[in-house]
Amino acid sequence: MMVKQSIQKWMEENKEEGVAFLQKLVQYGSVQGKEKGAQEFVAEKLKKIGMEVDKWIPGEDLVNHPYFCSPRTDFSESPNVVGIWKGKGGGRSIVLNGHIDVVPPGNPNDWKEDPFSGLVQDGKVYGRGVTDMKGGNTSLLLAIQCLKDLGIELKGDVLFHSVIEEESGGAGTLAAVLRGYTADAAIIPEPTNMKIFPKQQGSMWFRVTVNGQSAHGGTRYEGVSAIEKSMIVLQAIQELEKDRNEKIDDPLYSSIPIPVPINVGKISGGDWPSSVCDTVTIEGRMGVSPEEKMEEAQMELQQKLENLQDEWLQKHPVSLEWFGARWHPGNIDPDHELMHMLQQNFESVTGEKPVVEASPWGTDGGLLTQAGDTPSIVFGPGVTGMAHYSNEYIEIDKVFEAAQILALTILDWCEGGEL
Amino acid sequence: MMVKQSIQKWMEENKEEGVAFLQKLVQYGSVQGKEKGAQEFVAEKLKKIGMEVDKWIPGEDLVNHPYFCSPRTDFSESPNVVGIWKGKGGGRSIVLNGHIDVVPPGNPNDWKEDPFSGLVQDGKVYGRGVTDMKGGNTSLLLAIQCLKDLGIELKGDVLFHSVIEEESGGAGTLAAVLRGYTADAAIIPEPTNMKIFPKQQGSMWFRVTVNGQSAHGGTRYEGVSAIEKSMIVLQAIQELEKDRNEKIDDPLYSSIPIPVPINVGKISGGDWPSSVCDTVTIEGRMGVSPEEKMEEAQMELQQKLENLQDEWLQKHPVSLEWFGARWHPGNIDPDHELMHMLQQNFESVTGEKPVVEASPWGTDGGLLTQAGDTPSIVFGPGVTGMAHYSNEYIEIDKVFEAAQILALTILDWCEGGEL
Repeated sequence: MMVKQSIQKWMEENKEEGVAFLQKLVQYGSVQGKEKGAQEFVAEKLKKIGMEVDKWIPGEDLVNHPYFCSPRTDFSESPNVVGIWKGKGGGRSIVLNGHIDVVPPGNPNDWKEDPFSGLVQDGKVYGRGVTDMKGGNTSLLLAIQCLKDLGIELKGDVLFHSVIEEESGGAGTLAAVLRGYTADAAIIPEPTNMKIFPKQQGSMWFRVTVNGQSAHGGTRYEGVSAIEKSMIVLQAIQELEKDRNEKIDDPLYSSIPIPVPINVGKISGGDWPSSVCDTVTIEGRMGVSPEEKMEEAQMELQQKLENLQDEWLQKHPVSLEWFGARWHPGNIDPDHELMHMLQQNFESVTGEKPVVEASPWGTDGGLLTQAGDTPSIVFGPGVTGMAHYSNEYIEIDKVFEAAQILALTILDWCEGGEL
Repeated sequence: MMVKQSIQKWMEENKEEGVAFLQKLVQYGSVQGKEKGAQEFVAEKLKKIGMEVDKWIPGEDLVNHPYFCSPRTDFSESPNVVGIWKGKGGGRSIVLNGHIDVVPPGNPNDWKEDPFSGLVQDGKVYGRGVTDMKGGNTSLLLAIQCLKDLGIELKGDVLFHSVIEEESGGAGTLAAVLRGYTADAAIIPEPTNMKIFPKQQGSMWFRVTVNGQSAHGGTRYEGVSAIEKSMIVLQAIQELEKDRNEKIDDPLYSSIPIPVPINVGKISGGDWPSSVCDTVTIEGRMGVSPEEKMEEAQMELQQKLENLQDEWLQKHPVSLEWFGARWHPGNIDPDHELMHMLQQNFESVTGEKPVVEASPWGTDGGLLTQAGDTPSIVFGPGVTGMAHYSNEYIEIDKVFEAAQILALTILDWCEGGEL
């Protein structure tokens, strides 16, 4: 029997067990600070599959790293887990990376079922994190388990990352990189709707403070409204976004209206309707193109804000801070051999040509590329539009389809040969 | 001796007592809900002067009145006080109106002394509320006491209002009006820098809610930013302000850059930097011209916001609420006899021509005019720029100068004749 058929058969035979695993994984509601149960469950699974397991609490080397970015420094209840399958030697290694943390479920009333039910219905599994990205993680584990069960030996190493903190800046992946778990390339099954993303937008958060001068609203001409001045700032940000995006001619972005958006998500100013507002704070997210360094993008915003065409703002410059979350852009050569293998296997399993695009959001692929020198592809079974929304679900068939594609690709890349 | 000289002499002889009274009045820190002590002190003073005193707790008739506007409905610790000096009959009556409530002192660290010290230094009295408007109230009481002490009998009635709630919408003056304490005309010694204001701008607070549509910041083109849409709203408000003010050609406004400003004092929207903001709230104060009805001004803003030139906003109209504070505009004919008397007496006492202007802020004069049919003039010894600021003070000489002008004007209006 051809390996492809063997893999397909294995997937069919292990469907029930795979779905049960995903269900259970969702039921561990592993929001930030509560990843321990889910990680222990994953570690257990890795051992059963026959992988070597490293489970550790990220420590000081992480916190002091320049790429470290997290709202917390204490990870004592949040272990990182890596599964290791050593190859025979002489082959290419691969990182298979998935995050275990899920974003908070939001208002439970927006959910039809308990957000952590793991309900199976009409070929779907429901629950917070199922698409982002426990479904993808399950595809990875199924792929590895399948290859193991089929008795395949690989030349190259397979490293499975089950990382914390992706949703708040990637400290878990950074910790894995710092512990030496890098490879020749990586695949991250974030929810891409089965599209293949060789490039991922980076992003970082900024805060602009605009100062005016207080006065009574009845004599508002005696003051300077920070709200009026912030309109100038918002307009400048819109201009900068336009300029930055006009420069992008990569065909991978051709179907994306704004490849690297600058999103102003929050505005806040003033404390009294009849006073002239003297301070406005604007918070947003700046997209960073895959070809760009974070610092270059920061400099562009900085310069735009230093050159606002307004007399008051020239004399009272706005302040710019970079705070909170940060995702480095990721970039793998679209002609990279792993790209070809993945596309080929996609076509072989699905019978269709894959869509290759640039991703509008960052993943831990940026950190793997930039801190770990591990070029990364993002490809996964979840639906982007489901991520972070209520009633999040994933289609079970997609999880297993992705698992087959991934198994074949690991086999090709790490040189398992035929059965 | 001419009455003018007698009044001047009386003021000199009673300077010490007058300053002590003002000091004490300031020391009763009569912020909202804590007016009782100060009101009892005023009532005591009125009795000593020889006035009849009405002290009462405003009740249900007030709260149910269409002009009622206050953040509270319980006034059990906040009595209103009116002093009555009945005339002999056949003369014009006058309301002398001053509010007892003071705005909160803000951060005590911004004050050199305790905000309620009542410190006397270099010819000034310091403390929260001394300029807005306990200094003015003291001028009124000195004027009345002086006329009484000089044995003057008036034809018309004098009604002294010591009212609560001016700073939050005028419920105290409305209560006095509803209890029947209206007159042929009124003077309100709010801090005008000794200018005479026959017209006062009204104002009211509004809240505009702008709706967008949420999305992830990385694909912000899938949402609609309420922050971007609120820029259109802010611009429309600026246009409306311009149009409204271009229509005002009253010479009383000739030196005022924006006679009836629309001040946007607060803006707030969004809860996450990397999400598209789906709701922005804008709060502001709309100035109402003395010739205008509140409802007319409301309609203008309503119509402007209904006709925003934006497809999204046409389909998702912004909402407009009128909330919180409200001050009706006030308007007395600049050729009213009381205006002439006040100007003449100002010139006689100070040797200078008074400045006659329109006021950029509302006072209880609007309510007296519109609810009490009592045309009102605002004229007082405090400095506008001091009101609501830390280290608020008033010049003692101005208090006594205003008292003389007021005493002469009461004499003229209520027909006291010569001594």
